[in-house]
Amino acid sequence: MPEPADADGARSVAIERWTEGASRAGSDRVAHEEPLEIQVAGTPLAVVMRTPGHDRELVLGFLLAEGIVAGADEVTSLRHESVTPDPDASGNVIRVLLRDESGLDLERLRRNVYTSSSCGVCGKASLERVLATAPPFADAARFPAKVLYELPERLRAAQRGFAETGGLHAAALFDADGRLLVVREDVGRHNAVDKVIGWAAEQGRLPLAGCGLLVSGRISFEIVQKALAARVPLVAAVSAPTSLAVRLADAGRVALVGFLRGRGFNVYGARERIT
Amino acid sequence: MPEPADADGARSVAIERWTEGASRAGSDRVAHEEPLEIQVAGTPLAVVMRTPGHDRELVLGFLLAEGIVAGADEVTSLRHESVTPDPDASGNVIRVLLRDESGLDLERLRRNVYTSSSCGVCGKASLERVLATAPPFADAARFPAKVLYELPERLRAAQRGFAETGGLHAAALFDADGRLLVVREDVGRHNAVDKVIGWAAEQGRLPLAGCGLLVSGRISFEIVQKALAARVPLVAAVSAPTSLAVRLADAGRVALVGFLRGRGFNVYGARERIT
Repeated sequence: MPEPADADGARSVAIERWTEGASRAGSDRVAHEEPLEIQVAGTPLAVVMRTPGHDRELVLGFLLAEGIVAGADEVTSLRHESVTPDPDASGNVIRVLLRDESGLDLERLRRNVYTSSSCGVCGKASLERVLATAPPFADAARFPAKVLYELPERLRAAQRGFAETGGLHAAALFDADGRLLVVREDVGRHNAVDKVIGWAAEQGRLPLAGCGLLVSGRISFEIVQKALAARVPLVAAVSAPTSLAVRLADAGRVALVGFLRGRGFNVYGARERIT
Repeated sequence: MPEPADADGARSVAIERWTEGASRAGSDRVAHEEPLEIQVAGTPLAVVMRTPGHDRELVLGFLLAEGIVAGADEVTSLRHESVTPDPDASGNVIRVLLRDESGLDLERLRRNVYTSSSCGVCGKASLERVLATAPPFADAARFPAKVLYELPERLRAAQRGFAETGGLHAAALFDADGRLLVVREDVGRHNAVDKVIGWAAEQGRLPLAGCGLLVSGRISFEIVQKALAARVPLVAAVSAPTSLAVRLADAGRVALVGFLRGRGFNVYGARERIT
């Protein structure tokens, strides 16, 4: 079984809390995030990142929204699947059996599902898969705390689309002096990150070891995965990280700066990177 | 070509603006949202919902993050593809050719991409596909404006996980008196919506014609798609809708209540539903 979810979908992690240039060790509660594979008629249909709990409702709602079933009565069985040889994943796989599976075209359905990013089916396997192609940082890159304070204001000033619509996420790269190198906006948080990494690749700036990644939303597992792929050792956000993001940051030695507001923030993962 | 994107990723839509119980017609700028299909070596790999602009960077960053390429120099061609017989989609398909395509296992890659929801490859086709299985509302369901004002506070009070972590989205169903019927939290906005729809299905409450859907984040195309699938005629949010969400709400006769704050909000789509 994966680590048990707390009833409220939160988990505790160790952090370094910075206020006005000073820091102290503490702990924080972060949103619980794990992958869930949905199997229909014996075939893997989709993997979604979700907060464990109410998994049956999630899958039933997903099947309804995708038009795979028209009502709950078309589902004859919907349960967590034991997974061999990876028992850690057993809470993260749901097997669905339908009353009538004859008309199903799962290949067509798979073609029509949107995608964001890749991983395995349990949190631990996801981490290992990412770190196999993007190994943990061995470098000792450091960022002074004071460089971080002004980042949110600089990002907001550069977010033309957000100012107008209130509906666009942004991502930016910044250097060790806090200068924004590039800002991109998108309806998708992950897309905005892909755009700044793509910009860096086109500019011949990869790997990005001397830079940090700034995002307008939360820090999910996939954002840390993208940072590792582009070799960015620090990710900063005005909002919170998720549990799996913190685990990947711990394992990959990425510093996550969350709740960056005013002159304070929390550091998760490679906490030694902030000085 | 799809509708041209404004340089800042925003589009104008007609709205009804409510303040203190009175309304007037106006217009608003919303985030531009369109699907993008990424083809690698002649095979469709993924469809992502994105804001048009910097598409090359987006795709290059996606390929890097997925480990499909290790650098920009491995991409020999990356360009928008003309689409026959659907010229509307030509701005929404990118074809990638790689220097070495021999070792590619696209089927494995497709299995490993996360998914959220389904649609076509151009905005218009996406709308038509949704409305083919979930037709526009013909009913005349109405919601009084005053019912909406207290919804954000009620949702926030019910968000135990968000209060603790700052990192969980929420979705809820409410009735015509503004009572919350169910609240679910998740790291994924779409998952939270799937969970409340799944709850309603398990409770035998579908279709949900007398209810509204309340979400903590923005209203994207996929959220409106899920509302139509569950037959919910109203979606409300504290934040903004996207352009394709508004187009689908217009076509499907769903009312979108955005920027629901204090005693004011904007109505997009089926604006007549608010009285």
